[in-house]
Amino acid sequence: MCELLGMSANVPTDICFSFSGLLKRGGETGPHKDGWGITFYEGKGCRSFKDPQASSRSRIAQLVKNYPIKSTMVISHIRQANSGGVSLENTHPFTRQLWGQNWTYAHNGQLKNYADLSLGRMLPIGQTDSEYVFCWIIEQLYQSYNHPPANMHLVFQKIASYAHTLRQLGVFNMLLTNGEYMMCYCTTHLYWITRSAPFGPAQLIDADMKVDFQKETTNEDVVTLIATQPLTSNEKWHKMQSGEFCVFHLGQRIL
Amino acid sequence: MCELLGMSANVPTDICFSFSGLLKRGGETGPHKDGWGITFYEGKGCRSFKDPQASSRSRIAQLVKNYPIKSTMVISHIRQANSGGVSLENTHPFTRQLWGQNWTYAHNGQLKNYADLSLGRMLPIGQTDSEYVFCWIIEQLYQSYNHPPANMHLVFQKIASYAHTLRQLGVFNMLLTNGEYMMCYCTTHLYWITRSAPFGPAQLIDADMKVDFQKETTNEDVVTLIATQPLTSNEKWHKMQSGEFCVFHLGQRIL
Repeated sequence: MCELLGMSANVPTDICFSFSGLLKRGGETGPHKDGWGITFYEGKGCRSFKDPQASSRSRIAQLVKNYPIKSTMVISHIRQANSGGVSLENTHPFTRQLWGQNWTYAHNGQLKNYADLSLGRMLPIGQTDSEYVFCWIIEQLYQSYNHPPANMHLVFQKIASYAHTLRQLGVFNMLLTNGEYMMCYCTTHLYWITRSAPFGPAQLIDADMKVDFQKETTNEDVVTLIATQPLTSNEKWHKMQSGEFCVFHLGQRIL
Repeated sequence: MCELLGMSANVPTDICFSFSGLLKRGGETGPHKDGWGITFYEGKGCRSFKDPQASSRSRIAQLVKNYPIKSTMVISHIRQANSGGVSLENTHPFTRQLWGQNWTYAHNGQLKNYADLSLGRMLPIGQTDSEYVFCWIIEQLYQSYNHPPANMHLVFQKIASYAHTLRQLGVFNMLLTNGEYMMCYCTTHLYWITRSAPFGPAQLIDADMKVDFQKETTNEDVVTLIATQPLTSNEKWHKMQSGEFCVFHLGQRIL
């Protein structure tokens, strides 16, 4: 099992607070010691930091924790390996180009018989079930839309239909983004929370850290976080149902 | 204009010394203040650090300088923007998947009429001439070889023929790797040096730094560096000719 963390916001926001909680689960308060990664979007570009070692001991993770990179779209993942060895190429998130956009993805769960899904030109680099089915999703999308589609709502409905197929193969909790939209798919554990004015304080579950968002935000800010398990103890997180998907845009749920 | 730095080695080697020299040129001893990036391979995986701000002032560059990530294959680039704005998506190196491998590329120079080259499915995300022609190269390769080719020598001859075409459009100095081989193409400035036993001391041109490689290496180590301009003052660098290409494997020149 692994843990996922995602953020969609309407203003560039730093994720240091939530990432600090997640980091602890990478080999300290949780068993996810086989690597971690985080991808931040800035415009159409994105930057990833990854390490096949435990996040709680990673020097690069310390940099990310202490250096507030502001972004409107972030995906992070801490890994407990089951399919594929502990290596950089098997570390999430994965990013691929589609329609001149960076598509980034991370997966929690384990799939069987996924190799029966036929791939085209989009091939995995590592050996995980996760990257394999990501390649399959991107290939399916390209086969459905040779050109950037005008109606992104239909695209996410299509991706949900692929996710329903994958769910037949095992556990498929997923975060997927093109930098503008964040799609979340749940089969077992996925929670989300949207923070907007009036903001209040939040207390991390995994570390003795508290933040008063009132002091850090303006009244117009809207920030959604998605996580495998709630990261704060004093806020109400929405639990997603098995087979459910959500899409967020600028922090707001739109599907 | 920009500057390139590449390394191919037969043992995981840190590039901190050479990178320190390059960094200085990013807005301090040189004018390349519009971003920088570096990609390290670890097995089939690779990790990139990038910043659209000057390397001499970048906190992430400081981390890379001080944290010895060991790799057998590295590409780095500092940018002085001409085609495409200063942004993360326009920052080199660029990485794309081909044949289940990460292909990474950086370019120095400026090209005209490159948009006449027709692209297929591999589309640029940013607005640079550099990324556009990288997409073109990858597309051409895929059209020539649908499957991973057995003879990589022929592949590099093929890439050289594409580079000859691009050279007609302007200045095209390039580093390109699939993690195993490093190809270098020169139209104006590109130098390389292979270090092997007996190792000696080296003195950076851009910073008051000296290293005695004898103390840092074993007798079996072979390390090649490729750079736009020599980085050290007391060693003999090979100057490449216009239209010339080299390929390095495990630090040795093979083509």
